[in-house]
Amino acid sequence: MSNNTVADLFNVRSHNPSFFSVKESAIYEGPLLDFCIPVNLHFPPPQMVQRISERLPEILRYYPDYAEVHAKHIAEIAGVPPECIVPANGSTEIITRLCHLTRGPILTPIPTFSRWTDLPNELGIPLHTIKHDVRRNFRLQIAELVSRTLELGVRMLVISNPNNPTGAWFEAAGIEELVLSLPEVELIVIDESFLDFADLESAVKLIPRAENLVVVKSLGKSLGWHGVRLGYAAMNSRAAERLRSELPFWNVNGLAAYILKTLSEFKDEFRQSLALVAEDRTYMLKRLERIPGLRVFPSRANFVYVELPADVPGRELRDRLLQEYGLMVRECSNKIGSSEQYLRLAVQTKEAVDLLVQALTREISL
Amino acid sequence: MSNNTVADLFNVRSHNPSFFSVKESAIYEGPLLDFCIPVNLHFPPPQMVQRISERLPEILRYYPDYAEVHAKHIAEIAGVPPECIVPANGSTEIITRLCHLTRGPILTPIPTFSRWTDLPNELGIPLHTIKHDVRRNFRLQIAELVSRTLELGVRMLVISNPNNPTGAWFEAAGIEELVLSLPEVELIVIDESFLDFADLESAVKLIPRAENLVVVKSLGKSLGWHGVRLGYAAMNSRAAERLRSELPFWNVNGLAAYILKTLSEFKDEFRQSLALVAEDRTYMLKRLERIPGLRVFPSRANFVYVELPADVPGRELRDRLLQEYGLMVRECSNKIGSSEQYLRLAVQTKEAVDLLVQALTREISL
Repeated sequence: MSNNTVADLFNVRSHNPSFFSVKESAIYEGPLLDFCIPVNLHFPPPQMVQRISERLPEILRYYPDYAEVHAKHIAEIAGVPPECIVPANGSTEIITRLCHLTRGPILTPIPTFSRWTDLPNELGIPLHTIKHDVRRNFRLQIAELVSRTLELGVRMLVISNPNNPTGAWFEAAGIEELVLSLPEVELIVIDESFLDFADLESAVKLIPRAENLVVVKSLGKSLGWHGVRLGYAAMNSRAAERLRSELPFWNVNGLAAYILKTLSEFKDEFRQSLALVAEDRTYMLKRLERIPGLRVFPSRANFVYVELPADVPGRELRDRLLQEYGLMVRECSNKIGSSEQYLRLAVQTKEAVDLLVQALTREISL
Repeated sequence: MSNNTVADLFNVRSHNPSFFSVKESAIYEGPLLDFCIPVNLHFPPPQMVQRISERLPEILRYYPDYAEVHAKHIAEIAGVPPECIVPANGSTEIITRLCHLTRGPILTPIPTFSRWTDLPNELGIPLHTIKHDVRRNFRLQIAELVSRTLELGVRMLVISNPNNPTGAWFEAAGIEELVLSLPEVELIVIDESFLDFADLESAVKLIPRAENLVVVKSLGKSLGWHGVRLGYAAMNSRAAERLRSELPFWNVNGLAAYILKTLSEFKDEFRQSLALVAEDRTYMLKRLERIPGLRVFPSRANFVYVELPADVPGRELRDRLLQEYGLMVRECSNKIGSSEQYLRLAVQTKEAVDLLVQALTREISL
């Protein structure tokens, strides 16, 4: 298959091609190893998978429960009252509605999860950005964020913690300072979709003190199943009621609802899986750091952001890794604020990391 | 458990309690038989269920495909070009967005699927209704619909074909006359969520001749799995593009996407399942018609609408059927345009129908 065909496959707006479309394209004959999709590989546990498989017909036959039931289960995980929870068909459903509801302007540091930059652009909402500074390992100063927000008079500030794709993070104290410094902003959104991997405290504890705070969270990444579509937003109960009224009845599918309901029985396995991801990340960071010419940034997420040597074109490297080794990596040229010199590498098992490190070492030294 | 507790369970806005909440309430000790949820009981076939169960981890691990892929698969089922299709997280996602986008007024015959009446009310959109006439078995005259629409100057006309809950239907010629008579209405929505069971032609063939036509369809009912959340709308490609931009990326979950993709291999089984539902309905209609005092209306859907004798209170009957026999039926007092004198009974297997007929005969004659 020619490089053009590979490039076509990756030419899907600002996201990755789906794993299934790459697999079906048969660009690589052997099994594919995926470093694109940052998903918890140590969850769900086999017993949970087996139980779901066995009960699938009953789980799917009927209409799922209503939002109230999901909110109750999510509240237990999130540590806020159910009335503050808006269950969603993935965090993207929340992001889509928040962007449609706001008239902007929006401020967000970049690079970030593409939906936060692409949707405002698609909808013609004014979008301001602050570029993460590579010299500070992409970590931002709270003071700078506050002053830029006030200076620009934005209506919605969006922060991902930890950031996707850089892996950089704010400590809870930083988020608290930020949120409490900006009571005049209509909406402060903290996207905590990768927080479970970070051993950081959630911003939900600030909800009683900040009426303008919305915490958004995808659960698919943490639960290991992106395809299940499950996420939520947490905020004060009045705002939650308003946002819920914007979303469809039965927006959470029956399988997602069952997983939510069952999760409490697998709490230990869930905690352990996050510890295993952290262990894999430590291994991956160390191994990647030893590759000559590769710059590796600190990360608290379940992915690692790396900068390629200036003479290694990222798109070509991505295509070669797929065609020659069956390794799918996320090259970041279609992320605003990044370029093809950066890859986001999802944390994988040690065996997979060894294969990636071998391939990267060879390709970069060529 | 007291009748009050049963009533509380059914007190869930204008819908049923979920099957799961009734099951968990343990109102009835034995196995429950469900006549509430009109779902195809002869699909999916065991081989399809087995394949999905086996591949569940891979199906759910990754982000699902994009809307383009779903649109291609749906287009094959719907018989319109993919660019005319808006894939959705159940038809309710489409209904919710259409109601949010329209400023009304809306006209719809009642009773109908509750979302079509409740959402306008919740959103403060003016809603006009035409009551289906029991004397005509709830069938409506096209001329009356056209004149009322013009007279009221509505912006959105919503027709369910076949109607839920009455089971009454329009022939394709009637829908054609209606749609082509009303080019000045902004939006004509034909909800065909139960059309697969009706052996009627879809209104999608009118799309090239009616810019204002939107055909909405739930697939969960036909595919036998409500919990999977899958539906679509079909309309001219420009309108479809506009509506798609309102919906979240990845709004269709990975399991729904897999079912869509796999459906073409099970076309024969799907067709056969619809024939079996029709056979079950014929049996059910005949058996119900023999119950003294019960009025049974003609139906082309996978449910049957019945009128109880004036001296049989529907809510009490519903509670007794559940508590004494484990039979869940849909009593219609919370549907605008209906009352507790009406039940909507989902088509069930012959064995289940026999049990229902026995119980109904005994309870009505008491």
